[in-house]
Amino acid sequence: METAWKRKDLLGLEDLIKEEIELILSTAESFKEVSTREIKKVPALRGKTVVNLFYEPSTRTRVSFEVAAKRLSADVINIATETSSVRKGETLIDTGRNIEALKVDIIVMRHNYSGAAVMLARNVRASVVNAGDGWHEHPTQALLDMFTLKEKLGKIEGLDVSIVGDIAHSRVARSNIWGLTKLGAKVTVCAPEILIPPGIEEMGVKVTHDIDEALRNADAVNVLRMQFERDEQNAFPQQLEYFKNFGITQERLSKAKKDIIVMHPGPINRGIEMSSEVADGANSVILEQVTNGIAVRMAVLFLVAQANEHITNENID
Amino acid sequence: METAWKRKDLLGLEDLIKEEIELILSTAESFKEVSTREIKKVPALRGKTVVNLFYEPSTRTRVSFEVAAKRLSADVINIATETSSVRKGETLIDTGRNIEALKVDIIVMRHNYSGAAVMLARNVRASVVNAGDGWHEHPTQALLDMFTLKEKLGKIEGLDVSIVGDIAHSRVARSNIWGLTKLGAKVTVCAPEILIPPGIEEMGVKVTHDIDEALRNADAVNVLRMQFERDEQNAFPQQLEYFKNFGITQERLSKAKKDIIVMHPGPINRGIEMSSEVADGANSVILEQVTNGIAVRMAVLFLVAQANEHITNENID
Amino acid sequence: METAWKRKDLLGLEDLIKEEIELILSTAESFKEVSTREIKKVPALRGKTVVNLFYEPSTRTRVSFEVAAKRLSADVINIATETSSVRKGETLIDTGRNIEALKVDIIVMRHNYSGAAVMLARNVRASVVNAGDGWHEHPTQALLDMFTLKEKLGKIEGLDVSIVGDIAHSRVARSNIWGLTKLGAKVTVCAPEILIPPGIEEMGVKVTHDIDEALRNADAVNVLRMQFERDEQNAFPQQLEYFKNFGITQERLSKAKKDIIVMHPGPINRGIEMSSEVADGANSVILEQVTNGIAVRMAVLFLVAQANEHITNENID
Repeated sequence: METAWKRKDLLGLEDLIKEEIELILSTAESFKEVSTREIKKVPALRGKTVVNLFYEPSTRTRVSFEVAAKRLSADVINIATETSSVRKGETLIDTGRNIEALKVDIIVMRHNYSGAAVMLARNVRASVVNAGDGWHEHPTQALLDMFTLKEKLGKIEGLDVSIVGDIAHSRVARSNIWGLTKLGAKVTVCAPEILIPPGIEEMGVKVTHDIDEALRNADAVNVLRMQFERDEQNAFPQQLEYFKNFGITQERLSKAKKDIIVMHPGPINRGIEMSSEVADGANSVILEQVTNGIAVRMAVLFLVAQANEHITNENID
Repeated sequence: METAWKRKDLLGLEDLIKEEIELILSTAESFKEVSTREIKKVPALRGKTVVNLFYEPSTRTRVSFEVAAKRLSADVINIATETSSVRKGETLIDTGRNIEALKVDIIVMRHNYSGAAVMLARNVRASVVNAGDGWHEHPTQALLDMFTLKEKLGKIEGLDVSIVGDIAHSRVARSNIWGLTKLGAKVTVCAPEILIPPGIEEMGVKVTHDIDEALRNADAVNVLRMQFERDEQNAFPQQLEYFKNFGITQERLSKAKKDIIVMHPGPINRGIEMSSEVADGANSVILEQVTNGIAVRMAVLFLVAQANEHITNENID
Repeated sequence: METAWKRKDLLGLEDLIKEEIELILSTAESFKEVSTREIKKVPALRGKTVVNLFYEPSTRTRVSFEVAAKRLSADVINIATETSSVRKGETLIDTGRNIEALKVDIIVMRHNYSGAAVMLARNVRASVVNAGDGWHEHPTQALLDMFTLKEKLGKIEGLDVSIVGDIAHSRVARSNIWGLTKLGAKVTVCAPEILIPPGIEEMGVKVTHDIDEALRNADAVNVLRMQFERDEQNAFPQQLEYFKNFGITQERLSKAKKDIIVMHPGPINRGIEMSSEVADGANSVILEQVTNGIAVRMAVLFLVAQANEHITNENID
């Protein structure tokens, strides 16, 4: 018998067990077909209200969630806002309770503080989907990465996956590590020393500073975006030096497995994280990741809404 | 026989007679149930276009109207804009006529000039709903306050309602005073002298500068938001001093009626207008106000759209 | 037999043949009625996704496309963004491919670079509708101008149409010239010498610097907006001088054909391009242009979506 999804929220992959992750991925498989139809719409969330609450600007993630929700026939409300540095926590809870009072079903939140989604979820009965919180987690990004891996390679268990780039400040890396290791993949992280957080090995990953080693036996490489714009202390290596030492080039790929999969959460800095040749090449699945993001987010919205309805009905009984 | 709603617009409560206000409130009662359904949607405004035209930023009010319109199945278009200080009136009329030319049904407008909604309504055949104009009126806020009072206390006639805060610059206070007095409530306004507009007694209210007196016999207290950010001349009392003299605390409430209702249009400045204990306490109905805002706005959108269709059909006959 | 529409995109009127333009106009005629219904909605694009991708702010055009798409029952996603001056082309293609990967059907794009829409269209399978690119083309504006002319005067062939204003920097002028000349109208452009691009006669138009001559035999005058805000080099004539020499006044109109039609793409600078008397007078069809914009954009969205589906199906066969 299949595991049922029982959580009202999706806050991160650290909390989930293997079967829950697999359930999201298999639900996403059945939703993927919807976006290939002439009428790309199912009535699954008709009459539900989804709020996109974005404290950080992120057109890509907002749009992906908005498209996913609309293809489920939900009503979508976008709120783009800024965090006042003064009131933080209190304001977030007040905001959340006010949104909940509108009788919304799901709050999709992007926030610059780690833990913001957890705090919101504890304080509202509406479902909360974490669309990225600080350096903490970005679970739907990791889920769409895993969905793409499984689609391309047939499984995740036993795969060798390397994650390259700013591991220290990456919620995408953290969520991928949690998800991949739970599903039995072997994960290697690769970056300059300054971008590897101390103690990362405790998450069950191997560390290397050598990109060629990271690529050598990898079935897939997930290349993170270098957020040079966030590097206020100029601690990051220079862009050209980064590309020389860690950039994915066709030459480096030629020494890896022939069918190695190249992933990137986007937007790519061409010529920094990878060459254009690689980004647009035969190994790249970067645009398929974007397509799969819709299916995965449809699955997540659908599962949390269903579980929440069930929880609410049980409380009424 | 019930009064029918015959106005194409809702511009303020000053213009309305008692029966019209009661009709909005009773219509809102029947719409409130919609937001408790699994499918929170009725087809009442399907194929109608509602434009949210906001000259002042106001996420809360915009979102409330957007949710209300979508639960009525209307198409919603958001326009956030800024007033050019130069062209004022002319531009507003031009903008209104251009929006009308899109064959929209309802324009929900927030504007920083008092009287803007009236001017727009005179110049377009589309329905206009005033979502706040300068210091003039904010009728749907007052209607949701009254709806909440009636829901909690069974009636409005004969109630003692105190409004506390910056009465001088508050469209919420003005709309509440018009509405409550028409429905037979006794209204007291309470604030430091500088925040009471001269001649306010002519609106049929009692004035006090003593918060304890304002609370003593009140069935409900409506606490306004202090807009310290608008106080360019530094004329307002200091925040701590304000809280000391006018802030609603549990201690002050203990000397009031046991079931006194505490309202606030939000967002609350905790520790300035009231303590957190009061905001989240048993007497507070602040989040219920937010919920009721949806029902009231659904009722208003529905009534003006229906009346406008009727007017248009009559003109055709 | 009627010409069928076979293009996945609408990029400009330069590319189109007469029959294609006529097909858009006749399709728009049948859509115009939809906006007069009580339920202003047809299911033509249900389950399709339309993205409004605006690199330049333009509330009017964005709202017009959004209303048009919603009246066709499409899901609409708004993206307002800014062009980084550094990455230009590459970023636009990457953005386009990412949007396409969301399985959207139509991208409506406003961009400040001439040729941006063409470049996007070549790189995505989704339909692209040019909502204005630099000084190049703004085809739906010209189509709604022509629709209005045809509606008012019964035909376009043989009409005398004068276009007045900043011809040199106007995509509206260019698209109108292409469209009108293809449909057999005689076009005169009128402006101060500095605002007439050299060689414009090769587009098949007459040039004059005398407004009274431009009006004398005209069946219609299309008055462009003076973009004084864009005149960084202060090369434009002063506003008052411009009005004196080129502004449309009732007095000037009195020497033209009695039923001359006055058009303007909006927003009008009253007292600069024309007097208020003219803007609101009997000859003005300016607000009807806005209304017709919905019908024309519904037609364009419908035609490109249909053609694209057909192309996709053929590729599958």
